[in-house]
Amino acid sequence: MAHPMRRVAVLGSTGSVGTQTLDVIRAFPDKFDVVALSAGKNLGLLAQQIDEFNPEYVLCEDSEALKSLPGRDCGSLEEMATLPEVDVVMVSTVGSAGLLPTVRALEAGKSVALANKEVLIMAGEQVMDASRRFNNQILPVDSEPSAIWQCMLGERDAVRKLIITASGGAFRDRSPTELGNVTPEEALNHPTWSMGRKITIDSATLVNKAFEVIEAHWLFDMPYDKIDVVIHRQSIVHSMIETADGIVKAHLGSPDMRYPIQYALSHPQRVFNPGLKPFDPVETGSLTFEAMDPQLYPCFELAIDVGRRPGTWGAALMGADEAAVEMFLENRIKFTEIPDVIRAVVDQHTPKDSTNLPNLDEVIQTARWASDTARATVVGSSN
Amino acid sequence: MAHPMRRVAVLGSTGSVGTQTLDVIRAFPDKFDVVALSAGKNLGLLAQQIDEFNPEYVLCEDSEALKSLPGRDCGSLEEMATLPEVDVVMVSTVGSAGLLPTVRALEAGKSVALANKEVLIMAGEQVMDASRRFNNQILPVDSEPSAIWQCMLGERDAVRKLIITASGGAFRDRSPTELGNVTPEEALNHPTWSMGRKITIDSATLVNKAFEVIEAHWLFDMPYDKIDVVIHRQSIVHSMIETADGIVKAHLGSPDMRYPIQYALSHPQRVFNPGLKPFDPVETGSLTFEAMDPQLYPCFELAIDVGRRPGTWGAALMGADEAAVEMFLENRIKFTEIPDVIRAVVDQHTPKDSTNLPNLDEVIQTARWASDTARATVVGSSN
Repeated sequence: MAHPMRRVAVLGSTGSVGTQTLDVIRAFPDKFDVVALSAGKNLGLLAQQIDEFNPEYVLCEDSEALKSLPGRDCGSLEEMATLPEVDVVMVSTVGSAGLLPTVRALEAGKSVALANKEVLIMAGEQVMDASRRFNNQILPVDSEPSAIWQCMLGERDAVRKLIITASGGAFRDRSPTELGNVTPEEALNHPTWSMGRKITIDSATLVNKAFEVIEAHWLFDMPYDKIDVVIHRQSIVHSMIETADGIVKAHLGSPDMRYPIQYALSHPQRVFNPGLKPFDPVETGSLTFEAMDPQLYPCFELAIDVGRRPGTWGAALMGADEAAVEMFLENRIKFTEIPDVIRAVVDQHTPKDSTNLPNLDEVIQTARWASDTARATVVGSSN
Repeated sequence: MAHPMRRVAVLGSTGSVGTQTLDVIRAFPDKFDVVALSAGKNLGLLAQQIDEFNPEYVLCEDSEALKSLPGRDCGSLEEMATLPEVDVVMVSTVGSAGLLPTVRALEAGKSVALANKEVLIMAGEQVMDASRRFNNQILPVDSEPSAIWQCMLGERDAVRKLIITASGGAFRDRSPTELGNVTPEEALNHPTWSMGRKITIDSATLVNKAFEVIEAHWLFDMPYDKIDVVIHRQSIVHSMIETADGIVKAHLGSPDMRYPIQYALSHPQRVFNPGLKPFDPVETGSLTFEAMDPQLYPCFELAIDVGRRPGTWGAALMGADEAAVEMFLENRIKFTEIPDVIRAVVDQHTPKDSTNLPNLDEVIQTARWASDTARATVVGSSN
């Protein structure tokens, strides 16, 4: 008999998606049970979360601090993701951290709610392969793939095209020449969404949107030429599908990550959360859709071009972008140098063997190499 | 074995929906076969249609003219709707004409593509009862219920509310006081849709929208307090659903009746029609949603109030509105007198017995009585 509660492990519980996941779970004490929590460095918040949700297992980066926290140390994220007491693993880590836990969780028969989209950029084929072989579902958490997933209900064989919406990020109204002098503070001021720092910068460059295209390619088994991106400033339409007969189904809602998080956790049910107001079209302003200007977003085409290549290219892209964004936030490179850094790293990447799928360690090593190379490139150039 | 072609009878083939139905069928000669055509007075067009589609059975109002047309006379619309050679009956007649054919077709095991929404206004309970008892589907043809039907795919148990969009009709930008002097020509100039004359006037009064609310109530078994109407000037979003968790799914497409007609005919498949361009969100302008101003549309609340009552009230409403619209088009009453005429008729209606469902003859008689009474009311008042 299935457990009456859905038992959840939250990997990355103190980040933006992690805290919002716990906010959703808080609203449904009879539906969800937090079995395990892991965090990075934010020990204060983790301690509060442990106090409130009383998980059996905990994990954080600081092994000394971990000893003082209540709850059992489960050794590693992979072990947390494969605990027999867990039904759903919320992977809300960032960068490479989610890759091994995602694959191991799928292999261990868990559903994976995947917010850490870099996992699919690095190893989309391997992850989807694990999902298929072990017949476990990846539940999209990002608002755009979640919207597509929801629009595809009842339409699996009738989808002709995916249309991913993009707010355009913080600099959608700048000219390409103005972008050279923008500051990290300006870039972090996203017009519609409140998110983590890395993803907010990736939204300004549209790398995040390229990642979503790649993510949708893997999640929905859709060829790249059937995935469009349109600028939609209001972030109300979270994405759309075009059907075989030429109509469009759109998913509308407030720009609040708790909706897609909740859907991933409650799927296939939809449940009413008194803390989440139903969307009212009359209260929203005009909705607009525009073509994307590739000149304003040079990273987009670059990221798609590299990210769709097989083997370790996606990992190289991910690692290079991660380091480039960090260096921009550290004021070490200009906003307009982000694509230059990515390109410099990619130009140096020589994948070992393109006929076999790289194993996950090779993928993670490539991401680390790319990140290190990006930093070395900048140190080199500033001498 | 099922017949390889879907065999269609088109009732009302020379009207707006009828001709567009044949336009869709023309695009799929290997999918649909026209078995029967019926028209009213437009013999010239009917003869052309017979020549092109070569139906086995034909029908028109003029029995003498019918003799000269190729194809077998099938006696009545009910007989046409129950022909053993027919799989789907497209009921694109207007007013009372579609009621008996719809019910008889359902009883005879046919699917009914229903454009003649008055059928559900007059006898929603009886029609849905026939659909359930004989397990035959009513396929919505009107763009709004079709959009809801399509949005509900995969969401049957998760729908919290239906949101029907209304263009607002020809006079959405007039003040209530300006409406007294509008002409039939102005009222027939619909801002977004090209439709028949009766439905275009019903769009200007929003009686058509009230009819759609009642239609949706019956088709989707949804309580009236869970059906909203919002003004959406662009007629791109054809309707929406709100789900249990507070997101909205919307159906977007060009305002062209051939899309919903085709979907009704091809359901559950979606098929590509080279004559129907896929909808492109980038090519559309801003999309807006506004609350409806009840002062501008006094007919709306009146029609909902009367149309939702059981028994013969819906038929009285339908007959009164039909006559009122005709008299407005004949310049015999003002646009603003349409609700007065409907109200006068409704005030005189005394249903026989509210405990039993009226039979279909009583329903049709009530509609005729209401139409006659509406005309008598106007003749009386102009003396």
